[in-house]
Amino acid sequence: MTAIQDIMQEPVLVLAPGDTVAQAISAIRAIPRNRLFTYPMVVDKKGRLMGLCVMRDLILADDKARIADVMLTKIVSLQKGLDVHEALSRIKGREIPEYPVCARNGKLRGVVRAAKLHEIEEARLTATPGRMVGVDEGETVATPFVASVRSRLPWLMINLVTAFAAGLVVGNYQDTIDRVVLLAAFLPVLAGQSGNTGAQALAITLRTLERTGTTDFYSIALWKEIRLGILHGIVTGILVGLVIYVVAMIQGDKGPLVLAFIVFVATILSVLVSGLSGASVPIALKKLGADPATASSIILTTVTDIVSMGSMLMLASMLIRYLT
Amino acid sequence: MTAIQDIMQEPVLVLAPGDTVAQAISAIRAIPRNRLFTYPMVVDKKGRLMGLCVMRDLILADDKARIADVMLTKIVSLQKGLDVHEALSRIKGREIPEYPVCARNGKLRGVVRAAKLHEIEEARLTATPGRMVGVDEGETVATPFVASVRSRLPWLMINLVTAFAAGLVVGNYQDTIDRVVLLAAFLPVLAGQSGNTGAQALAITLRTLERTGTTDFYSIALWKEIRLGILHGIVTGILVGLVIYVVAMIQGDKGPLVLAFIVFVATILSVLVSGLSGASVPIALKKLGADPATASSIILTTVTDIVSMGSMLMLASMLIRYLT
Repeated sequence: MTAIQDIMQEPVLVLAPGDTVAQAISAIRAIPRNRLFTYPMVVDKKGRLMGLCVMRDLILADDKARIADVMLTKIVSLQKGLDVHEALSRIKGREIPEYPVCARNGKLRGVVRAAKLHEIEEARLTATPGRMVGVDEGETVATPFVASVRSRLPWLMINLVTAFAAGLVVGNYQDTIDRVVLLAAFLPVLAGQSGNTGAQALAITLRTLERTGTTDFYSIALWKEIRLGILHGIVTGILVGLVIYVVAMIQGDKGPLVLAFIVFVATILSVLVSGLSGASVPIALKKLGADPATASSIILTTVTDIVSMGSMLMLASMLIRYLT
Repeated sequence: MTAIQDIMQEPVLVLAPGDTVAQAISAIRAIPRNRLFTYPMVVDKKGRLMGLCVMRDLILADDKARIADVMLTKIVSLQKGLDVHEALSRIKGREIPEYPVCARNGKLRGVVRAAKLHEIEEARLTATPGRMVGVDEGETVATPFVASVRSRLPWLMINLVTAFAAGLVVGNYQDTIDRVVLLAAFLPVLAGQSGNTGAQALAITLRTLERTGTTDFYSIALWKEIRLGILHGIVTGILVGLVIYVVAMIQGDKGPLVLAFIVFVATILSVLVSGLSGASVPIALKKLGADPATASSIILTTVTDIVSMGSMLMLASMLIRYLT
């Protein structure tokens, strides 16, 4: 998070409302040509922002006119303390190149250029996929080795703990796998499908959060993922069921139809839960005050792994008498 | 990809180099106040861009001065046909609010506002995590159900095929799993670790591609991932090895030390290969002319699943005589 005061600059030209246009123009003349600025700012005696002047209006105005009469007073100012992302959502859709920054008491503190805000926001947005898997916002290929280790290794350690949680679920059903070893080959299939479904829902939710700035859409998102989960679950469930049926027939395993039923139900269940989790995890993180992108991916992978592999193995162990 | 001509506007004011400043100012007076524009553009008789005027310079200049003498000629113009992302990389670091757009022959075609370019770029960047897992650039929670199915389901189908590839590898070693069923519990652990490592390398590479626009850093990226992969592989390999050793001891499995050795080596190998793949996949897609973000994730998951689970099971089947 970059605060707006970290990137604001001194206002180049500050006028008083009583100044004349002629005075303003001679003040502009006195500014070195290479200093970039767009608007002279107008403040009262206490330094509070009253308005700003557009160069075009100064050109059109009479020399003797007062600044108070030619300045714009309906202006968008940004408050000190805003972060860049919030500032950008305030100025969304406006094509103004420079904004005044004021303190809470209305005093002009500086100006900030829209291009600078966008530059920082774009750097933050290119960082999103990395933040989801434990890569520091600033890390690129050029980052030194030790800094990369520091940013990435802790995340791999956390991931290891959650991966063991999934392993524990599978380990819990060693007996079932021992008796129907074909199930082991379908562990990556179920985990892969539900992982992808969850990642899709996660991406959509993150994107909607980013664009709207609110979590109000949560119930709509849930309802959408329920419908998508059921449909996608049925379609993929049929395919996965079909494959295990054929393989079990070829291998001469017992109960191919029961196996097909198990993976069919497990696929629907895990695709559904993954979609709902993908929509819920970033919302929950946001409501807890955390960055919705950071840690989303790791929590989601754990959920999808456990639900998908767990549901298949649990069903199989419940129906084990038809399989051995 | 949005092309610059799709968002450019008509130039509001076009001057000739022989016009006087007074003429320019009266032309500006004639423009409705609510029409937003920043610079009058200057073109020759054939409509080719010669320069542009800064309002401030018009204020400072003498009424009788010629536009040719007050205009800026060292200007940044954008060429028709550029996409928004390329256009932004041309204007990076500049704080100019409006750019002229020219045809290849130098003729002025329109103007484009920097704010508009940034707006489109930011929408594209918020879409990146989604593109990586098969979600259309424009999809949000508000997208209709059928459109979401159309965008997401094909990707889930492709993912299913690649998940079966991983399943096939595991299925190939059913005999080994049958004899050392504990290995099944470590399939998600290895897949999880290498998946996370690969996703980290992928994110860094995508981000560096996005920010630099070139693939020149590829050898640096590879060398970095080799060192990170070895270090991270050893650290996580020791932990995973330790856990399987303890579990095998508790369960009374045969050859706990051999099992620890197997997962240790498999972890190093898969973390290393995943890191290298994460760096290579987006570079390869970029060189093939594809969007480096789209499909990266799916290819990577397949590689990491196959390498991680495959290497563990292959090693185990090679050393099976110490395990049964």
